[in-house]
Amino acid sequence: MSSKSTEDEIIGLEREALRRWCSGDPSGFLEICAPEVVYFDPSLERRLDGLEALTNYYEPIRGKIMAKRFDLLNPLVQVVGAAAVLTFNFVSYDASETEYRWNCTEVYRQTAGGWRIIQTHWSPTKPTFA
Amino acid sequence: MSSKSTEDEIIGLEREALRRWCSGDPSGFLEICAPEVVYFDPSLERRLDGLEALTNYYEPIRGKIMAKRFDLLNPLVQVVGAAAVLTFNFVSYDASETEYRWNCTEVYRQTAGGWRIIQTHWSPTKPTFA
Repeated sequence: MSSKSTEDEIIGLEREALRRWCSGDPSGFLEICAPEVVYFDPSLERRLDGLEALTNYYEPIRGKIMAKRFDLLNPLVQVVGAAAVLTFNFVSYDASETEYRWNCTEVYRQTAGGWRIIQTHWSPTKPTFA
Repeated sequence: MSSKSTEDEIIGLEREALRRWCSGDPSGFLEICAPEVVYFDPSLERRLDGLEALTNYYEPIRGKIMAKRFDLLNPLVQVVGAAAVLTFNFVSYDASETEYRWNCTEVYRQTAGGWRIIQTHWSPTKPTFA
């Protein structure tokens, strides 16, 4: 169901988008999202639907999110035809070495222009509930 | 890319598994998971890989999770060939009417035996971080 080159390509796309994200640039993700992308993160009341909604959500934080370094832990790509499901744990460190840990699921779809994200889900790893 | 009947089938599978889950029965999910299922929830340090790991995780809580009522809010199914991505917000209420809100992504894969889950991601909606 999978091939090494597809796995490498998907992980490479994600890693490059994350590199830009950690430099304050959300366009790395926006450029590889399909128009129908849907999106979850813990600060949202409901799922965001569509690239326009995600763009409107990301633009105000352009230049504001920085990480000194990050890592994708244990990335896995499950390929089902023209769909690829990437899951990984993400860890990043800010300038004061504070660690942030996340769970992430990305679903990519193969298009004429390359692989595009149709679903993103970010959530905190073991958050402390108040 | 989608069809009404596939959407209805996927949402129906999920709703029935949730109905059993909310009665303390994790087998509703385990029975519709593929062997290669991967799983995130906020209490885990890392992704769980495989049906055996998920079964071992769920069995100790059999009979312990109950919800008086629940709802899938705004479910969406994105079909890509033999893959189907279901996203929804989930709300449940316990006996004292305490409300619990979650984000959920399920990726299903079409098999000879029907649709099976290959990826589950549960996360809290707007958690309060300590």
